[in-house]
Amino acid sequence: VETISFARGVPAPECLAVQELAQCAKAVLERDGMRVLNYGPAGGYAPLREWLAERHGVEAGRIVLTNGSLQGLALLAGQLLVDRPTRVLVEGPTYDRLLRIVAGLGAEATAIPLTDEGLDLEALEGELRGGSKPAFLYTIPTFQNPSGRTLPLEARLRLLELARRHGVPVVEDDPYRLVRFEGEPLPTLFELAEGTGVVHAASFSKVLAPGLRVGYFILPAVLSRALEEAATRTYLAPSFLAQATVWEFLSRDLFEVNLERIRALLRERRDAMLSALERDVADGASWSRPEGGYFLWLDLPPAVKAAELVPRAEQAGVTLISGTDFYPGGAGGEAAARLAYSFAAPSRIEEGVARLASLLPTRQPAAPAA
Amino acid sequence: VETISFARGVPAPECLAVQELAQCAKAVLERDGMRVLNYGPAGGYAPLREWLAERHGVEAGRIVLTNGSLQGLALLAGQLLVDRPTRVLVEGPTYDRLLRIVAGLGAEATAIPLTDEGLDLEALEGELRGGSKPAFLYTIPTFQNPSGRTLPLEARLRLLELARRHGVPVVEDDPYRLVRFEGEPLPTLFELAEGTGVVHAASFSKVLAPGLRVGYFILPAVLSRALEEAATRTYLAPSFLAQATVWEFLSRDLFEVNLERIRALLRERRDAMLSALERDVADGASWSRPEGGYFLWLDLPPAVKAAELVPRAEQAGVTLISGTDFYPGGAGGEAAARLAYSFAAPSRIEEGVARLASLLPTRQPAAPAA
Repeated sequence: VETISFARGVPAPECLAVQELAQCAKAVLERDGMRVLNYGPAGGYAPLREWLAERHGVEAGRIVLTNGSLQGLALLAGQLLVDRPTRVLVEGPTYDRLLRIVAGLGAEATAIPLTDEGLDLEALEGELRGGSKPAFLYTIPTFQNPSGRTLPLEARLRLLELARRHGVPVVEDDPYRLVRFEGEPLPTLFELAEGTGVVHAASFSKVLAPGLRVGYFILPAVLSRALEEAATRTYLAPSFLAQATVWEFLSRDLFEVNLERIRALLRERRDAMLSALERDVADGASWSRPEGGYFLWLDLPPAVKAAELVPRAEQAGVTLISGTDFYPGGAGGEAAARLAYSFAAPSRIEEGVARLASLLPTRQPAAPAA
Repeated sequence: VETISFARGVPAPECLAVQELAQCAKAVLERDGMRVLNYGPAGGYAPLREWLAERHGVEAGRIVLTNGSLQGLALLAGQLLVDRPTRVLVEGPTYDRLLRIVAGLGAEATAIPLTDEGLDLEALEGELRGGSKPAFLYTIPTFQNPSGRTLPLEARLRLLELARRHGVPVVEDDPYRLVRFEGEPLPTLFELAEGTGVVHAASFSKVLAPGLRVGYFILPAVLSRALEEAATRTYLAPSFLAQATVWEFLSRDLFEVNLERIRALLRERRDAMLSALERDVADGASWSRPEGGYFLWLDLPPAVKAAELVPRAEQAGVTLISGTDFYPGGAGGEAAARLAYSFAAPSRIEEGVARLASLLPTRQPAAPAA
């Protein structure tokens, strides 16, 4: 059987605007090749920085483009941990690659639990009062990876209040926000904080094409300089061709139409996964119902351990990621898994969920209707 | 006056094959967009890895493509210094950015002096016998940055013999080799060592276009895995669009013709600089006569200090880099400077050297012919 991947947060091939991007790459090289092809600023291709600066209402010097946002997060974490190399607050569960960056820098990540509505602010407050001061708080407030959960407006304001009171910088990782299928868009932490005390990280990976590796950061001026200097030290400058191609795509007003297409494609996949889970998966399991993004979080039925399920699922032809991957030191998520619905086609998603369900305890027959 | 830059090793704009690269970017996206635009291997775009593997006679798994070679050097140095975080041997003078990477990793760089023919092997042997074992030797054997010097064949063999005997890995940084104006090409250290004990680093920056940020490494299998893992940790994957565009350019057999064009453009600039120095610069100064590459090294006349000359030159409208930038801790090169002839047009080079010469002691009138 051909494996069905619920493992990686990869966009479906149909999401990629291949022909348009091909035209854009050619056009922007023909028009601005001397700049695109030579050395240039470590902070990235100037016209794209300016476009983003205008969109976000900040000065262009506060925008730094990186080779994917992970590259920027790695450099930024290094900067933020220089002065206080002790610990970082993260969500539990959180983005696994950020955990590896923090560990690689010799710092400790403390996981704050999630409720159904994102970060548990009681727990955050307790940690801020009780523990040693963290270098920063890392949060993915919208369509969180891996849980798919979104922090409501009230909680966003309270989070910012707590961070401000305790003097802890917030790193808001926000790659999924524009992939919203339904519900009202929420302001970002960066917007609510009016740019103070919050670094905003985002990317074109989930809303255009990940292989382009175009991430971006909006930072306080002093941090944007530090990030640019760190970029200069490690790679001189990012790859301008991809950034210039993205800018051309934006300039031609292709972005919104394409984003609508991506939303429709992924909504269909999310719906297919939710329906299949509802139909096939045994009592005792539960899952998040994301309003957007790439992932949902599956809490397994009692007595099912992810460590046993994941390899059995792979043998049965469906891959998913154990919840433990998303906790510092693997301490958490033992009875949970992340399911990405972004990649497989809807019919494949149904088949994949059926394969997964066949490995779970049988559903109890419903009581006959009275 | 408009400043004339001898400071940065930037190719002249005429070197950049803008139209051809625009065609290549479009064509490769149209043909292979699904792969180019999605997530993929941290080691880079597979067809380019395979092309380089065939050209260098190694397996594709031993090639790792990075966002420019500096990115790879930073990751590689991190890997090589994990087990032995003490010191690195470098040439004095050497590539300044490598020095910053080593310092950033908390290691010490020990400079081995150069002779007119590259690394001083007597001094290298003394250092290997006397000092603590270094994590690696970093060398740029061909058209060295900053000196423009090239290590002859005999010395290459002896260097490898010494490195082997003392068990020290060699990192051969080789971005300039193909930009040869005259003289016989020499085998690389990697070729002479038949791939054992030598990491070969190279790039398309100096032979095609730096803004593409396509560097590559040829490594022992165990190190190529380590480098790929480090790349995954920090940026998931490089930007494939630039790598695919380079591959398309190579596949269309455009590379050699374009390289000839670049060689002709830079040879003319080197000649202009050498003639102007000969004509204008006072007795007591001396300079290297590179057979290729981007740079030459100027030893200043007695009593002239680079620290004083460089800012005065900038005021006079010509930029160059103090020799001290190329020594660990700035300890060396006080009476020297690096001059890049790659960027400015020949007439500008003449003008720039004249501006520089006006700041140096007046030439002694030649003795009348007997």
